[in-house]
Amino acid sequence: MEKNSFKTDYRIIYGDTDRLGIVYHANHFRFFEIGRTEFFRNLNITYKEIEDKKIFMPVAEAGCKYINPIHYDDLIIIETSIDTEYKKGLAFLYEIISEDKKTIHAKGFTKHAFINAEHKVIRPPEFIKNLKRDLFH
Amino acid sequence: MEKNSFKTDYRIIYGDTDRLGIVYHANHFRFFEIGRTEFFRNLNITYKEIEDKKIFMPVAEAGCKYINPIHYDDLIIIETSIDTEYKKGLAFLYEIISEDKKTIHAKGFTKHAFINAEHKVIRPPEFIKNLKRDLFH
Amino acid sequence: MEKNSFKTDYRIIYGDTDRLGIVYHANHFRFFEIGRTEFFRNLNITYKEIEDKKIFMPVAEAGCKYINPIHYDDLIIIETSIDTEYKKGLAFLYEIISEDKKTIHAKGFTKHAFINAEHKVIRPPEFIKNLKRDLFH
Amino acid sequence: MEKNSFKTDYRIIYGDTDRLGIVYHANHFRFFEIGRTEFFRNLNITYKEIEDKKIFMPVAEAGCKYINPIHYDDLIIIETSIDTEYKKGLAFLYEIISEDKKTIHAKGFTKHAFINAEHKVIRPPEFIKNLKRDLFH
Repeated sequence: MEKNSFKTDYRIIYGDTDRLGIVYHANHFRFFEIGRTEFFRNLNITYKEIEDKKIFMPVAEAGCKYINPIHYDDLIIIETSIDTEYKKGLAFLYEIISEDKKTIHAKGFTKHAFINAEHKVIRPPEFIKNLKRDLFH
Repeated sequence: MEKNSFKTDYRIIYGDTDRLGIVYHANHFRFFEIGRTEFFRNLNITYKEIEDKKIFMPVAEAGCKYINPIHYDDLIIIETSIDTEYKKGLAFLYEIISEDKKTIHAKGFTKHAFINAEHKVIRPPEFIKNLKRDLFH
Repeated sequence: MEKNSFKTDYRIIYGDTDRLGIVYHANHFRFFEIGRTEFFRNLNITYKEIEDKKIFMPVAEAGCKYINPIHYDDLIIIETSIDTEYKKGLAFLYEIISEDKKTIHAKGFTKHAFINAEHKVIRPPEFIKNLKRDLFH
Repeated sequence: MEKNSFKTDYRIIYGDTDRLGIVYHANHFRFFEIGRTEFFRNLNITYKEIEDKKIFMPVAEAGCKYINPIHYDDLIIIETSIDTEYKKGLAFLYEIISEDKKTIHAKGFTKHAFINAEHKVIRPPEFIKNLKRDLFH
């Protein structure tokens, strides 16, 4: 199961915050992107390499629960895993936690479509099926 | 029911797009913010005035389904309404549609908490209850 | 001279601000983009049409002086003009002023390169020369 | 002189790019912020600690020359130094270079004002004077 979860971190800058003094809610989805990019890299697949094969994975659905605010200069940990219960394609789950791991800041998900260079929807490619199989068996 | 829905528009700039040539998914939540701000303004309440009373409404949960991509220079229409089925507090529903109204780009929601100047959670203020009552009866 | 300057407006959202309660300095360059896009549209040229001819105008240099802070919910006016003293290519000048025109928020500029679809630098296209000639003579 | 320059890195995400396939020009100023924040941290001063003393350093002027485009998934190096020729206050210089150090992506600067909690301009605080003295003598 170790392989199914990957942690990376990110330091909050002024540009991530809003006038309430906390991270603007849309930016959590940027952090999720950092999480899934590093998740792939950790498996020795870069998202860029996937795209070099003319397979793109735009976000088809995304959601986030904001549990505890994130503040300026916080070092957050983004924990990314594949949603094993999602059968129709590829979905990721995310948790943003504090540096000391005592606070859960947010939980979220993204579901992805697969499209080709002409932006047509295609079936999940083999390597994604293999990836899910390898991670869970 | 007319009063429960408000439309505003926004022109997509380069800064909203990503290398796929479409609007980056996190930015839809910015558009939703534009929608609910103008929803309030249309009711002669500005969100800024609410905050002057030391009532803040951070986003507690948000989600979006990306149905059709939004491209550079598109003029999008953001239609905002209050979710009448959400009883626990205040929630908004959003639809992003094309200028010619033929394409639904995205559907989303936000649920809001109410906090005071010390960032403590408070009960929904009277004016929100009145607002919901006025809009639906 | 009228033709050389164009005004457009933009309403500041939460997502534009930072924890100091003012607009984050990088976002002024987004506003400048809104300004020059609408400058072109006002001349019945859309930037998108230019790109359809496979001419792209990336920013080669940009700068901004931050004179007075911009706050949440401010309606700003972005005034865009072509820098007539810049001979080497195309440069824009911007002023961001308050709705009541009493406050200058910022002054800035962008200088643009011209590139083709292969991202090679090209000479300024004819229509840009014509544009500059028509605006100033 | 070693002390006057500090390098940190950042990995480009989709959210940083635009439809030209390169990093949107406004985002370089976010990278500069990352640079100067880590510059201070390296001197055992966090920008957050400065603010805890109710001293804020908003950007008064900023500029950037875009020399070579930055692409998706690039790991950039942000090199930050204090501009020793700027006598009136505090100014930083930045270079964004490629991971292999062979490409200069951009050069920029920021000049900073000092303000107090009431947003009034104040003189540069002692620790800044000491910092500049310590770094250069």
